[in-house]
Amino acid sequence: MEQKSQSPLSKATNIVWHQSSVDRESISKQRGHRSSILWFTGLSGSGKSTLANAVNVALHKNGYATYVLDGDNIRHGLCKDLGFSDVDREENIRRIGEVSKLFLDAGIIVLTAFVSPFRVDRENARSLVGKNDFIEIYCSADLSVCETRDTKGLYAKARNGEINHFTGISSPYEVPQSPELKIDTGNLKIDKCVDLVISQLVKKKIISKISDSL
Amino acid sequence: MEQKSQSPLSKATNIVWHQSSVDRESISKQRGHRSSILWFTGLSGSGKSTLANAVNVALHKNGYATYVLDGDNIRHGLCKDLGFSDVDREENIRRIGEVSKLFLDAGIIVLTAFVSPFRVDRENARSLVGKNDFIEIYCSADLSVCETRDTKGLYAKARNGEINHFTGISSPYEVPQSPELKIDTGNLKIDKCVDLVISQLVKKKIISKISDSL
Repeated sequence: MEQKSQSPLSKATNIVWHQSSVDRESISKQRGHRSSILWFTGLSGSGKSTLANAVNVALHKNGYATYVLDGDNIRHGLCKDLGFSDVDREENIRRIGEVSKLFLDAGIIVLTAFVSPFRVDRENARSLVGKNDFIEIYCSADLSVCETRDTKGLYAKARNGEINHFTGISSPYEVPQSPELKIDTGNLKIDKCVDLVISQLVKKKIISKISDSL
Repeated sequence: MEQKSQSPLSKATNIVWHQSSVDRESISKQRGHRSSILWFTGLSGSGKSTLANAVNVALHKNGYATYVLDGDNIRHGLCKDLGFSDVDREENIRRIGEVSKLFLDAGIIVLTAFVSPFRVDRENARSLVGKNDFIEIYCSADLSVCETRDTKGLYAKARNGEINHFTGISSPYEVPQSPELKIDTGNLKIDKCVDLVISQLVKKKIISKISDSL
């Protein structure tokens, strides 16, 4: 990256550094909303992806710039070199935090939907950005509910010992101590869950309002 | 991620999978432009970041959703665990390719500004996305020009042996064989370089037009 230089060559070629650049503030101004990281956490089957995607649809319908990061687009791409050891899970969440920060910087409301069971990993992600940029949303469906759903059959495999280090069965889930939102995804209807998230975004002045929620 | 389930519990809690989702096409439709990866490559000092940032400003002024990935936001964050060995440089470019793909999917015109000296790494990044989604832009300033600029003093250090594996001095730069654009950043004025990139975006129907270029 060249700075303004006094060398004759630099002048001749006129490749100089332009002070004007595009920052988060100018993007927010143009789009009419702030960016934010909505970090959904909870057990497998607690409804993180379902809720994140429903919120995403609602925001998109209202013209907000959004993106969902989840296992589908992260584990097969950016983190395909990682397994499920403690070290690899930590690195997985670290990268997701860093990518979320890039989306935040790009003016996007980014929604991440990962179990992210360890407090320290979530706090590390939070620490990368400003105080008001990170909204932790704890999807608090009980293990019994999640295990009964078990649409992917993962709990059954974990119980059989076919999967090791499975959160809730053979690996701990560290409940968030002071998340910005705790949503009872084990009992509430999806529309109500979406409303709770949207209300939080309005309250934090990330978006102004929403007319068409689902 | 729950699918529609017939289990009583799932019905009771009403957490069901919504078919409607937000895809790249619906984002493009809403924003009025396609997304794309503009992959700037060239020697250190060839003007990649300068040009990418100038294009970014021009696109932003015209209301297009954009983002620049460069050493400043990648090397200190997502890739801060990587050094400059061959393996690490390859992994660095791999991650940049994967992150670019996420931005593409989010409807953003993403501009990457990295030396990315090896053909195979650039081709790997290209292969992650559709044929029309990757625009390789070769900033072709000669080594002599780049070395004379040397605003960061890196070439001097490389010549002194203080930096090893420095592209152009002690490590090869593999010139792109068929980039979508080759721009003579050693001689052309920045305005002209920006115009060449913008024209390419219009030609490829990523954007429709631009009224205010710089």
